[in-house]
Amino acid sequence: MLTDLSSCDYTPKDELEGRINRLKEGMAKQGVDYAVILQNVDLFYFTGSLQKSYFIVPVEGEPLFLVEKNIDRAVVESPLEPISIKRDKDVREILLKKGIRGIAGMELDVLPVTLFRRWKTILDIKDAADISGLIKDLRSVKSEYEISQLKKSGEICEQVFDFAGGFIKAGMREVDIDAELNAEGRRRGHQGFLRMRGLNQEMMNIYVTHGRSGAIVSGADVPISGTGITHAISQGSSFNTVKPGIPVIVDYGGGYNGYITDETRAYIAGELKEPYLKGYQAAREIIEETSSWAKAGINATEIFNRALKIAKREGLAEYFMGHGSTRVGFIGHGLGLEINELPVITPRHEIHLKKGMVFAFEPKFVFPGEGAIGIEVDFIVREDFLERITSTPIDIVYV
Amino acid sequence: MLTDLSSCDYTPKDELEGRINRLKEGMAKQGVDYAVILQNVDLFYFTGSLQKSYFIVPVEGEPLFLVEKNIDRAVVESPLEPISIKRDKDVREILLKKGIRGIAGMELDVLPVTLFRRWKTILDIKDAADISGLIKDLRSVKSEYEISQLKKSGEICEQVFDFAGGFIKAGMREVDIDAELNAEGRRRGHQGFLRMRGLNQEMMNIYVTHGRSGAIVSGADVPISGTGITHAISQGSSFNTVKPGIPVIVDYGGGYNGYITDETRAYIAGELKEPYLKGYQAAREIIEETSSWAKAGINATEIFNRALKIAKREGLAEYFMGHGSTRVGFIGHGLGLEINELPVITPRHEIHLKKGMVFAFEPKFVFPGEGAIGIEVDFIVREDFLERITSTPIDIVYV
Repeated sequence: MLTDLSSCDYTPKDELEGRINRLKEGMAKQGVDYAVILQNVDLFYFTGSLQKSYFIVPVEGEPLFLVEKNIDRAVVESPLEPISIKRDKDVREILLKKGIRGIAGMELDVLPVTLFRRWKTILDIKDAADISGLIKDLRSVKSEYEISQLKKSGEICEQVFDFAGGFIKAGMREVDIDAELNAEGRRRGHQGFLRMRGLNQEMMNIYVTHGRSGAIVSGADVPISGTGITHAISQGSSFNTVKPGIPVIVDYGGGYNGYITDETRAYIAGELKEPYLKGYQAAREIIEETSSWAKAGINATEIFNRALKIAKREGLAEYFMGHGSTRVGFIGHGLGLEINELPVITPRHEIHLKKGMVFAFEPKFVFPGEGAIGIEVDFIVREDFLERITSTPIDIVYV
Repeated sequence: MLTDLSSCDYTPKDELEGRINRLKEGMAKQGVDYAVILQNVDLFYFTGSLQKSYFIVPVEGEPLFLVEKNIDRAVVESPLEPISIKRDKDVREILLKKGIRGIAGMELDVLPVTLFRRWKTILDIKDAADISGLIKDLRSVKSEYEISQLKKSGEICEQVFDFAGGFIKAGMREVDIDAELNAEGRRRGHQGFLRMRGLNQEMMNIYVTHGRSGAIVSGADVPISGTGITHAISQGSSFNTVKPGIPVIVDYGGGYNGYITDETRAYIAGELKEPYLKGYQAAREIIEETSSWAKAGINATEIFNRALKIAKREGLAEYFMGHGSTRVGFIGHGLGLEINELPVITPRHEIHLKKGMVFAFEPKFVFPGEGAIGIEVDFIVREDFLERITSTPIDIVYV
């Protein structure tokens, strides 16, 4: 008999029930009769377990947590009374017996075509409604339980940034800093990797960039991606060596019990010179200004526009969030079990912040051919203010 | 102007042309008029670059490498003369101008439904042929260039296993060993992460398991997955502490210029006792026996069956490749740019090994409630023999 499998909390039963009930409400509004959840992160969100399994939620009645492998773990991890099945095809008979039928809702944003066709046969349906928007909306608002997990994830960030201040030195390669900081996070309980939703979405735990390598971006939708050490990945730390006077940008993602935090700090050997000093001061002002007024209810586009205004006033508009055709369109992105959750903070997405949303906020400036600077902090949207997830200062760290 | 971006080789032009020509031959046989490649790994395989891009291959005529972001990097990385486009929708007009039409082939095994629907609109098609099987078959046979990259990936494995012998000690936690070995690999030029094809397929660079945590498997399709430190990932190293007399199993994946190697070694503080000793000797015999006769042309099922025969003879059949309902169905899997390539070595898949195939071979034994033992090596299929990728011995390492 398995007992405790990890040091992390099990997702509480009332937490899961609340999520499932909100899913059902959304399904009812969308006219969906039952949901078929197949993606691993959504499975974990709704069941508390991430085994090879299928989670069926009828709009009325009890959900079915059907587990192919490993049922023993699912039983320990989930309070939802998992049912052991041999193969995905067995789902059909179970649905027939339970009288579950009608319009199926599925995660069409991530479900590959071949797998979708297989499930259309299993479920004997012609098509399915897309419930990925509904799930992403539900997941964008975090409960206090989820915020407690995010704060533990943030503690790993704090420890890694503290450690970095004593470790980084001129002469080190970006990858050496990457290796040691990533190891420190793992020793502190980092879950191992970070998740990003969608085809081709890839993310490392840590990006250490310095000077020119920070100004060269990849196809990835991030303002500072680094060059990486291979064209086969094309992002991340490189063999570039740290020189005095040019900031080392450490973008690190904490990961605890599935929950991701994502913050950036700047370290410098010697003195921080222009254009980095001006960029840093503008990034700092943008974070402090946003902290001073943003809260639940405000329009995310206003956050972006006010930040851009500060960048313009400082003559930094052309370097804001990238440069030229490689500039990114956002200054913030939602955080949770995946690193690309809602809300996105852009000038185009009219999203009104809700209490419980959590987002990374990353004013960054990229100076082509030279380097980049920026700071990133994570905010919890509260009724009347934004709360920082970590307590690590946003000062430049002199090493 | 960008110049050299990394220390890795650029994929040679004749290499890419060979791949594209073989793709065209396969398309012709399948009756596909043009291929639309969208997945990042396939994009890298056919273009030598992994930017945000779309690669169109008409069955006759020149391919079009259309890059949304970052065109500057694509130009440096790929000899295929990338064309800059603003957005995916621009592809339609380009195809119209070039007269490319007919039956489109797409990677339906990985393309999400929503994205497929978007591309059906862009291409103005009703459906597409699935060319994922064709691509997987092409990719399963490695060129000498690819083998040279795999060997560099294997060198990272060798260095990490050497380092592990001097580092692992009784009293350490699995995650501490994981952190330090992973850091050592990164310092030696590991690309950062490993790729696995398909929905929910996740893989860490390193799995350190010891005793009971090695006997508890997850939903993942691996014989020894570890418990991990969170139910949200449910695989990998745990906080379990190394005790004498029980082996530490280190399953490590090298990653160099996209190419993945995947080997396993066993380390022990004190003396290796039963049932581990017997399990180790059987794993060793299986590897040596397979090495003595397997080569191009043989049926992969025969490799599996001969291995099972040795396990049976040693009274280990019920522990072979897992136990009970969590046993896995394979003893080997193909390696390349993804860790779950062809061939698979199982009793069910009648695959005749081709010259140039590369696979990980991992006889492992799981003793429920106790622990696991196993060895994994990577083989290149040659005309008359199997060639090992690394030169690290498969002996138990006493620490």
